[in-house]
Amino acid sequence: MEYTTIKNKIISLINFGIGKENKLRGAKTPKELINEFDFSIGKDGKSQEEIVAIIDDIISNSVNTNHPFFMNQMYGKQNTMAIYGDILTTLLNTSMYTYEVAPMMTLIEKECIAKLSKIVFKTSGDGVFTPGGSISNMMGLMLARNAKIKQVKKEGLTNAPKFSIFLSDQAHYSFQKAAIFMGFGNDSIVKIETDEIGQIDVNALQLAIEQEKQNDRIPLLLVGVAGTTFSGVYDDLANLAEIASKNDMWYHVDAVYGGSLLFSKQESIKFIGIEKADSVSWNLHKMMGVPLICASFLTRQKGLLNEAFAVDADYLFHDTEADYDLGQKSLQCGRRVYALKLWLTWKHDGEIGFEQRINKLMEIAATFAAKISAKNNFELLCQPESAIVVFRILDFDLDAGEINNLNKMVRDKIFNEGEILFNYAEFKGKIYLRCVISDPELKEEAINKIICKIEETVSFVKKQIESSFISLNV
Amino acid sequence: MEYTTIKNKIISLINFGIGKENKLRGAKTPKELINEFDFSIGKDGKSQEEIVAIIDDIISNSVNTNHPFFMNQMYGKQNTMAIYGDILTTLLNTSMYTYEVAPMMTLIEKECIAKLSKIVFKTSGDGVFTPGGSISNMMGLMLARNAKIKQVKKEGLTNAPKFSIFLSDQAHYSFQKAAIFMGFGNDSIVKIETDEIGQIDVNALQLAIEQEKQNDRIPLLLVGVAGTTFSGVYDDLANLAEIASKNDMWYHVDAVYGGSLLFSKQESIKFIGIEKADSVSWNLHKMMGVPLICASFLTRQKGLLNEAFAVDADYLFHDTEADYDLGQKSLQCGRRVYALKLWLTWKHDGEIGFEQRINKLMEIAATFAAKISAKNNFELLCQPESAIVVFRILDFDLDAGEINNLNKMVRDKIFNEGEILFNYAEFKGKIYLRCVISDPELKEEAINKIICKIEETVSFVKKQIESSFISLNV
Repeated sequence: MEYTTIKNKIISLINFGIGKENKLRGAKTPKELINEFDFSIGKDGKSQEEIVAIIDDIISNSVNTNHPFFMNQMYGKQNTMAIYGDILTTLLNTSMYTYEVAPMMTLIEKECIAKLSKIVFKTSGDGVFTPGGSISNMMGLMLARNAKIKQVKKEGLTNAPKFSIFLSDQAHYSFQKAAIFMGFGNDSIVKIETDEIGQIDVNALQLAIEQEKQNDRIPLLLVGVAGTTFSGVYDDLANLAEIASKNDMWYHVDAVYGGSLLFSKQESIKFIGIEKADSVSWNLHKMMGVPLICASFLTRQKGLLNEAFAVDADYLFHDTEADYDLGQKSLQCGRRVYALKLWLTWKHDGEIGFEQRINKLMEIAATFAAKISAKNNFELLCQPESAIVVFRILDFDLDAGEINNLNKMVRDKIFNEGEILFNYAEFKGKIYLRCVISDPELKEEAINKIICKIEETVSFVKKQIESSFISLNV
Repeated sequence: MEYTTIKNKIISLINFGIGKENKLRGAKTPKELINEFDFSIGKDGKSQEEIVAIIDDIISNSVNTNHPFFMNQMYGKQNTMAIYGDILTTLLNTSMYTYEVAPMMTLIEKECIAKLSKIVFKTSGDGVFTPGGSISNMMGLMLARNAKIKQVKKEGLTNAPKFSIFLSDQAHYSFQKAAIFMGFGNDSIVKIETDEIGQIDVNALQLAIEQEKQNDRIPLLLVGVAGTTFSGVYDDLANLAEIASKNDMWYHVDAVYGGSLLFSKQESIKFIGIEKADSVSWNLHKMMGVPLICASFLTRQKGLLNEAFAVDADYLFHDTEADYDLGQKSLQCGRRVYALKLWLTWKHDGEIGFEQRINKLMEIAATFAAKISAKNNFELLCQPESAIVVFRILDFDLDAGEINNLNKMVRDKIFNEGEILFNYAEFKGKIYLRCVISDPELKEEAINKIICKIEETVSFVKKQIESSFISLNV
């Protein structure tokens, strides 16, 4: 079959990239797209020219996550080297279960895990790449369970005592999903309140642990968050390490978003105590610009992963290189190679390059935050602890509910115009705007443009309200 | 930063492909590779030229899974269109949780799921793409559990009754992993014996169900296998459907490997009964040549996935397009786009192209099997039911143990020479060789070459034994 025209299209996309020249977002509803576009598969195939036209349609109707003004999610602007690493992964197309079919990829994954472990635990440790942070967090719960009750692997949870899992109300929802999926039930989740920026309240935690013990529930897992989803702030990891140890709990640190600050000497003070964690989740596809997915699960003690996940499978695992058959550490059997793109990028950029990327992101976040602070009509949640700037629009003529609606309306209007994308979330009853900095080359003028756009939109929305029947109280 | 040299390298790999011109395998041990190659990450980065040299080293020391003689795993020769689809996925770099950031990808995934469901269930159904067949199988167990006891989502498995999961001794080991991971314990797994080619023994199954009931265990899940890992044979899916229904069990069909035969009218008779399954796992990265990973989980009844996996996460999921936020059906939060590469390939090849691919693979397997059958010195396990040819070398001068060792030695010698890669496994005490056909363009001469190579190696190994102290009885 002939593919030259399609191949040339793909090569030109690689040559010129999908970057700031492309539209950030074409805001269409599902209905509009379904009307406009033929998603169905036909009996006969399509010509090369038709496929190229389809590719163009896909690009122009997708969100351009590489655009500097894409600040809506916790990933964004890709590292160019990492794109090439992911393309090489696709071309090599192997699976991470055995050394036999993935010799280089196995050694590369092992090197990345050893290096990440060393950064986290100051010692070698163990780990594996997973299909995402949620599954890494589940694996933490799995090891916690096995550490507490050995026989559950054989006998299951029926007749086991009831367990409790402690985490802040700002911890990621994947722990809840994990508790439900793994048979602990939602009741096992104990959410601890947080302070005014989203850090766990350690006193409330200690009270809750006592309470659960009195209710005959066994403390199983304590989660520390290193970079909350909402505000990017860090729990007091050292204090939590002590509490976990005192109560004989597994200590898991969710550094899925915030872990990459460990690459920077000046930022790494935020992590004091993480070296005492039993396990850690850390995604590299977020701040480091590696294409989705690049998620690691790390554990301090060697051997636990194999104990948890190794199952006899004679057709696949032969004895010869057992230590190098990473399928024995993984929830999956066949597994895409996630490590190559990280390793190649790290090799290319060096430790210095990784440190600089983080420092640049943090400088941009600090500049952004300073500009917000300097204005009366904005309220900054806190100095950014990682690369998220969280703030809200203020208006002294409006009440609390109206201010919430104003923030949401401004965000939605800007989002739907499609030139700047950022997200919003509610925290302690207030709606905040969240700009995630993912592009280390973001210019100061870009920040000015964003703030200016928000201010203009505030005026526009307020005028619209005054001149119409739209109310801020919905 | 400058990337031109590296970019040109990647583009030349896309232009010329990693195909049969490249070596199939450079057989090196971990020690040898570690000695030869610098896996460490340095303080400083590497130059473009150094990165290109590293890429060359990686390729020449990796297994070339696109080579026509790569028959070692259940995937292989890629579909060219699917490679381009995966590269486009990397360039677009979005995450599958919300319509907001993945409008086109969401509609494309929904179209693929609807189409696959229709093929399986003859009705629309529901589903999601997952990071692999093992996790799809786990999701089947999750839905089974929720269907049986609603309160487990809230209360967990403590105090729940003991459950049993029935599957053949040829079913994939991921069910065992799932039972352990999800808190049912290994004891919940009831392995049913199989006949002489690996199909479940339905009488033994019925006895086992009665037995478990008498032991106060509740039958929870029945697994039917549509293409076993070892021999690619199909369980009697219609019969199993009845047994599941009679015993009020969830019926999950593992069509991870064999599902793609559904694309062929003439092959689809093997699946009678699958339309009664409650859920099905089906991977497209195996027979269809889509790059790893492309795995689907399908379920007949709409709404169950959302019920099982939706968790409140205000920062991410807003109300607007809830039906289109696929993160609510998934075990993951951030999720790579798995559907685009399949959809583009299907669009390009058409239904007819997919059917032809399967028919070609089956013709090659039949030809291969016929050639093996025609020879006295080989024993074919059975006519291939899917694209795996399973056979063993016979020798009337040797006893059973010696024949096993001969088969293993011949396979290992050929494997280590690195020109033809196929696997082996033990079945009912006998070692068999397994050649998986993944390249629909494999020529008859290639089959002749493989058989000839095996025969030559048998002679060589036997001579070596006669003239030395090596014994076949180890």
